[in-house]
Amino acid sequence: MAKLTSRAENYSKWYNELVVKADLAENSGVRGSMVIKPYGYAIWEKMRDEMDRKFKETGHQNAYFPLFVPKSLFEAEEKNAEGFAKECAVVTHYRLKNDPDNPGKLIVDPNARLEEELIVRPTSEAIIWNTYKGWIQSYRDLPILINQWANVVRWEMRTRLFLRTAEFLWQEGHTAHATREEAVAETEQMLEVYADFAENFMAIPVVRGVKTPSERFAGADETYCIEAMMQDGKALQAGTSHFLGQNFAKAFDVKFTNREGKLEYAWATSWGTSTRLMGALVMTHSDDHGLVLPPTLAPIPVVIVPIFKGDEQLAEISKVADDILAKLKAKGIYAKYDDRTEYKPGWKFAEYELKGVPVRIALGPKDIANNTAEIARRDTLTKESVSLDGIEDYIETLLAEIQQSLFDRAKAFRDSHITKVDTYEEFKKVLEEKGGFISAHWDGTAEEEEQIKEETKATIRCIPLDAAEEEGHSLISGRPSKRRVLFAKAY
Amino acid sequence: MAKLTSRAENYSKWYNELVVKADLAENSGVRGSMVIKPYGYAIWEKMRDEMDRKFKETGHQNAYFPLFVPKSLFEAEEKNAEGFAKECAVVTHYRLKNDPDNPGKLIVDPNARLEEELIVRPTSEAIIWNTYKGWIQSYRDLPILINQWANVVRWEMRTRLFLRTAEFLWQEGHTAHATREEAVAETEQMLEVYADFAENFMAIPVVRGVKTPSERFAGADETYCIEAMMQDGKALQAGTSHFLGQNFAKAFDVKFTNREGKLEYAWATSWGTSTRLMGALVMTHSDDHGLVLPPTLAPIPVVIVPIFKGDEQLAEISKVADDILAKLKAKGIYAKYDDRTEYKPGWKFAEYELKGVPVRIALGPKDIANNTAEIARRDTLTKESVSLDGIEDYIETLLAEIQQSLFDRAKAFRDSHITKVDTYEEFKKVLEEKGGFISAHWDGTAEEEEQIKEETKATIRCIPLDAAEEEGHSLISGRPSKRRVLFAKAY
Repeated sequence: MAKLTSRAENYSKWYNELVVKADLAENSGVRGSMVIKPYGYAIWEKMRDEMDRKFKETGHQNAYFPLFVPKSLFEAEEKNAEGFAKECAVVTHYRLKNDPDNPGKLIVDPNARLEEELIVRPTSEAIIWNTYKGWIQSYRDLPILINQWANVVRWEMRTRLFLRTAEFLWQEGHTAHATREEAVAETEQMLEVYADFAENFMAIPVVRGVKTPSERFAGADETYCIEAMMQDGKALQAGTSHFLGQNFAKAFDVKFTNREGKLEYAWATSWGTSTRLMGALVMTHSDDHGLVLPPTLAPIPVVIVPIFKGDEQLAEISKVADDILAKLKAKGIYAKYDDRTEYKPGWKFAEYELKGVPVRIALGPKDIANNTAEIARRDTLTKESVSLDGIEDYIETLLAEIQQSLFDRAKAFRDSHITKVDTYEEFKKVLEEKGGFISAHWDGTAEEEEQIKEETKATIRCIPLDAAEEEGHSLISGRPSKRRVLFAKAY
Repeated sequence: MAKLTSRAENYSKWYNELVVKADLAENSGVRGSMVIKPYGYAIWEKMRDEMDRKFKETGHQNAYFPLFVPKSLFEAEEKNAEGFAKECAVVTHYRLKNDPDNPGKLIVDPNARLEEELIVRPTSEAIIWNTYKGWIQSYRDLPILINQWANVVRWEMRTRLFLRTAEFLWQEGHTAHATREEAVAETEQMLEVYADFAENFMAIPVVRGVKTPSERFAGADETYCIEAMMQDGKALQAGTSHFLGQNFAKAFDVKFTNREGKLEYAWATSWGTSTRLMGALVMTHSDDHGLVLPPTLAPIPVVIVPIFKGDEQLAEISKVADDILAKLKAKGIYAKYDDRTEYKPGWKFAEYELKGVPVRIALGPKDIANNTAEIARRDTLTKESVSLDGIEDYIETLLAEIQQSLFDRAKAFRDSHITKVDTYEEFKKVLEEKGGFISAHWDGTAEEEEQIKEETKATIRCIPLDAAEEEGHSLISGRPSKRRVLFAKAY
C-alpha cells in the first residue's frame, strides 16, 4: 500500500487520497457525481439512522416527494428560484431512439420533447408546498412535520468527493405551522438536534449561529447553521435550519382558517444535512495514517487480529477470540475477527489503521500464555497489554473514552482556532498565517461583508447565538458594532 | 367520510380511492409521479428495513451509484439499452436563466447544453458495471455483493399510484461472480429471499418461476420472478432476480484473472423490488371498508380507543389503557392510545378501519367494571370481550393469528384461482369469466405466446419452478409440451 500524502505536505491531496483509499467514495463516469462505496455508505447509514431516530423522537414523519419539479412550480417562489436557477439539471425529453446514422447507438428523440421542462430537484420546497396546498385548510391540519431522505442535484463546476458533488444524498425537513412563533421554535429546535448530533454522535464540535442576510438560503427569512472547523483552518457548514416565514405559503397560496376563523398564510421551516457530513467527519478526526472514526460511526468498532504460525496456533487463538466476540456481543458491541490466512498481520494492521477501526486487539501465542491481549487505539496510536479477564468491560470503557477524547481533541483544536482581532491588518495576517475562525466586529452591511470576501476570500460564517454583547468598531468602515461575528475561509 | 366504492362495483376505482383515502399516496403536480404520504411511507419503511436485514444477512452491503447515466454508457449493453430507450427521461441542459420576455420567469439557458446527454437511471446496470470495471482485476476481488436503495425513472404514459409511476423507489442488487454457477446460485438465492419476504412478512403467497425469453429483463439470460394474485383475478409481478450471464461484463470489458491465471469475463446478477409492492399489499388483503394490513407491516398494530363521558371516566379508562400500553411495550408491541376529545369513538373506529389497524381495543366504563375490553379484529371485522388479565398475551397471540390468517386467506383465494385448461376455448372462457392464473401447455415458441397475448391480453407470467413434468399439447399449435406454464392478465 502506497503511503498517504501527509496533511502538512498537501491537505487537499491528503483528503482526496484518503477518501478513495479508505474505500469511502470515488469519482464516477458521470461528471461531478460520485460512487459512495460500501464502507463509506455504511458510515452514512449510521449517520442517517441516528438522525432519523432524532427526527422521529421530535415528532417528525418521513414521506417522499417527486424528483422532478415542473418549471412553472420551480419558479413560483422567485428568490428561491433565482438562487438555484444557475445550477439546475433540466429534463427536456422523455425518449431515446435508434440513431439512423450509427447502428447500435441512440439519440434523443426530437419528437419526445416535454411540453414543460422538468427541473431535477436542487431542493424540494416548491414541489412540497405545492402539495401542502392540498393538505392545509384549517389550523387543525397543522403543524405538518415531515422529513424526506432523498437525492438532489446542484450542478457544480468544481467538485470534490462528499464536499461538493453535483448529486448528493441528504435529508430535508419541511414543516408548516399556524404561527410565526411555532415555526421559529421548530427552526431552533432542529438546529439543536443537528448540533447535538454533530457533537455527541460525530464528535464534531460546532458553533451554533445565524447567517447574515447575504448568506441566507434563497427564500428564507432567517438561516440558522452549525459551523465546524477543519484541521486546515477552514470552516465547514455542517447543517442549516431555515425559518421561511410565509414566503412559500404566499408563492403557492397555502392559506388556512385559524382559531379565530380568519384566513391566514401558513408559516414554514426547512432544514437539511447531507453527505457533506462525510467530508466533515474525515477532515475533523483523520490523520496521516488514514481515517479516524468515532466508535459511534465505525462500521467495525473493534477488530481482532490473530498472530500465529500454523493451524494449531490459530485454532487455540480462535477459541479465545470467539470468547471475546461473544462477550462483546452480549454488550451490544460489534467486533470482527479477521482470521484470513492470505494476509499477514502487518498488512491487516495497516488496513484497519487506514480504515479507522477504533480498537484493534492482537492475539498471539504469548498473549494466550499470559492471559492477555494487546489492545491498540486508533486515535492515539498507542498500545497496551490488557488482561483477558473482563476485557469486554475494558473495551466498553475504552470505546466511550475514545469517543470523548476525539471530541475533546477536536474542540481544543477548534477553540485554539478562534482568534479575536480588532483591525483589518490583523485580520488578514491571522487569516493568512493561522486560519481558523476570526472573531471580529462587523458593521452589519452587505458592502463591508462583500469587500472582505473579495479581498480575503473569508466570509462571515455566522453570528454565533451565544455572542456576548460587546461595544466595538467594524474592521473597515469603523462603524460601531454590538457583537462579534465569525469569519473564516470555508469549504 | 364518504364511503369507498366497493370492489364489486369498480375494482380499479376502489383501489385508487383507497390509496388516497387511507393516506398512502396521491398524485403530484408532476405528471406520473406520486407523493408517498407519511402513512404509506411508514409501511414502505417497514418493508425496506426487513428486506435490508435479509440482504445483509445474506452477505450484501449497500452502496450508492449516480442518478445520471451518460448516453454512451447507457447504450453500451445493446439489449438493455433497447429495452429501456423508449421510456427514458433525458437531461440535456444544466442551467436556467431569466426569461427576457417574461420578468420573474425562467427559461432553459441554450448556452448550457450538455455535450453528452444524461439519462435519468431507469435501472443501474450500466453505471454500476462501468464502476465494477475498476474494482475487479482478480478472482480475489469477487464476489461483489452490493445492493442500492434508490429512485428510478421510467417514463410511463398511463400511470397508477404505486403500480405504475414514472418515478418509483426500489432496491436493486448488483452482484459480480467468478463463475456461472455461483451467479446462478445467487440469482436463485435472492428469488428465495423475495419469496420468503412476500409470504412471511407481507402475507402474500407467491408463485416462484422463470420468465419466458420474451418476458425477460432486457439484457438478462434468465429472469426469475415471484408472481402474486390480486383479488380481481389479475397477476402482479412482485419481484425479479436476473441472471445476466457475461453480457454486462462484455459490454463494459470487465475481465478478471481466474484461479488458473487466465483472463475471464465476470458473471453478473441483478434483482429488484419496488414501491409496486405497496400496490400488491393493498390489492391482496384490503376490503370494501378500507385497508387491511398484516401486523408486521402496520405502522399502528394496535389502537386503544376510550369510550367515555366526561373527564372522570376518561381518567379512569386512561389508567387501564396506560397499563395495557406498558404491558404491550414490554412485549415489543407498539400500541397507540387515541384519547383525543375532538373526535367521537365512532369516527375513530371508521378511521382505524380505513387505515387497516389490525387490532382495536375499545375500553368503556362497563368494560372497566367487568375487568374486560372489547377487542376487534380488522381482518374478520369480528369483536370479542376479553379479560384484562393477561390481555397482552391474548393480543400477542392474536397478532400472530391475524398474520397467519391473512396469508391463509390469500393463499386459498390464489389456489382457487389457478385453473388447469387444455383447450384454447376453455382458456378464453376461464380468463373471461373467472380470471386468475391459467395453467396450460405451451409450445415454447414466441409466436404462440404472442398470439395468445394479442387475442386475450393474457401473458405467460412464469414457468413455475415446481411445475411437474407432464405430457401435453399446446393450446394453439397443438405441439407437444412437457410442462404447464401460468398465464394471466397482469398489472
